[in-house]
Amino acid sequence: MTRSEHEDGIRVAVSTVILTLRRDGGQAPRLALPLVRRTRDPHAGAWALPGGWLDDAESLAAAAARTLAETTGLAPSYLEQLYAFGAVDRSPSRVISVVYWALVREEESVGAVGSDPENVAWFDAEDLPGLAFDHARIIEYALWRLRNKVGYSRVAQGFLPPEFTLADLREAYETILGRRLDPANFRRQVDATRTLIPTNAFRTGSHRPARLYRDATDVELADRGPLSPEETRTS
Amino acid sequence: MTRSEHEDGIRVAVSTVILTLRRDGGQAPRLALPLVRRTRDPHAGAWALPGGWLDDAESLAAAAARTLAETTGLAPSYLEQLYAFGAVDRSPSRVISVVYWALVREEESVGAVGSDPENVAWFDAEDLPGLAFDHARIIEYALWRLRNKVGYSRVAQGFLPPEFTLADLREAYETILGRRLDPANFRRQVDATRTLIPTNAFRTGSHRPARLYRDATDVELADRGPLSPEETRTS
Repeated sequence: MTRSEHEDGIRVAVSTVILTLRRDGGQAPRLALPLVRRTRDPHAGAWALPGGWLDDAESLAAAAARTLAETTGLAPSYLEQLYAFGAVDRSPSRVISVVYWALVREEESVGAVGSDPENVAWFDAEDLPGLAFDHARIIEYALWRLRNKVGYSRVAQGFLPPEFTLADLREAYETILGRRLDPANFRRQVDATRTLIPTNAFRTGSHRPARLYRDATDVELADRGPLSPEETRTS
Repeated sequence: MTRSEHEDGIRVAVSTVILTLRRDGGQAPRLALPLVRRTRDPHAGAWALPGGWLDDAESLAAAAARTLAETTGLAPSYLEQLYAFGAVDRSPSRVISVVYWALVREEESVGAVGSDPENVAWFDAEDLPGLAFDHARIIEYALWRLRNKVGYSRVAQGFLPPEFTLADLREAYETILGRRLDPANFRRQVDATRTLIPTNAFRTGSHRPARLYRDATDVELADRGPLSPEETRTS
């Protein structure tokens, strides 16, 4: 395998899709993600996913975590690799973008501030502004993967605190899937999986008290890929 | 986002993990994959996954298909992106390798010949030779993903012809999972998914005739990623 004369022009970037459930005053929660306004060309002024160039001396996951922290101040406990995007025409120059993603709880998403806070904002995933490059398609793919994944894994718990009610969990599913679920059926299905442990605590408030649950196991919620420390370590 | 001074040294390569089920004279089938012997440094003489450098003017999937065809003569109908490997120390120089994978039927795996057939061979996945770079770990990850995926998708059918017996399908599962499955339980579980349609044809031979089945739907067996033609087209 000889080195092509052409590939000198190929550069490697990383981007991150950070999703959370935003609750605004009693309304149904909505999926939201942070974007960064570009201050230089190409696409100056357009919103883009947090990201930047891969540095020679850092792993892909470390680059994703670094550029995410620099731009947004966010530091999720893990980042999962989503996909490597490499269409020839996705940028004026040839850029391969390795995209990572994470689900964060709403508490983790507030208060985080990057180096240029005026150019960072959270957007409703259903109501995005004009986006740079192929970032609209990257987000669409992340949302598709999320919808797909709730069918066979406990990914929705990534949005929730360690203890949650069945209504919290159902609401997370409903938001991801974009449709209402029957509460009784949902409870039966969750019971059948035996992955939740009822605690002795209840949430009280305007409704009747609701029992709090926690995850039954310490099984990873994220696919850490090849499970190698140097690949998945974010710092 | 400014361009780092360091990243000029980063190059992008592609590799492919092609898996098939090999049956040798009545024995239980085994997972097998093609490897290419390296003829130059680094790791001259070691076996490696088929692959090569990404060309400036081709998509990642197209580069994976081209380098696979050049080295092995194989041309699977689709390649699915497996993972982007980017550990800093995975190669003497900095190389990001975007790895694709596919399952092929045994018939597709025979007769394919690349440009240097003496340096291509199929190996039993459980009995690999010394491998270049981090390719042993990449293969390990591909096998992990395959075992994982049979739990929630019809990936095993990728090894089988359009019509197959329940014993064929169970054998594919057994080989992937590395353990025996109870035939009666397996049949009940498959029936419950309602994804197989019994045909009116039977396979006859030394045993009693076995009914042939086919997949119930045209649902894709592969995750084509972002579902964009330019990303997934292999030619």
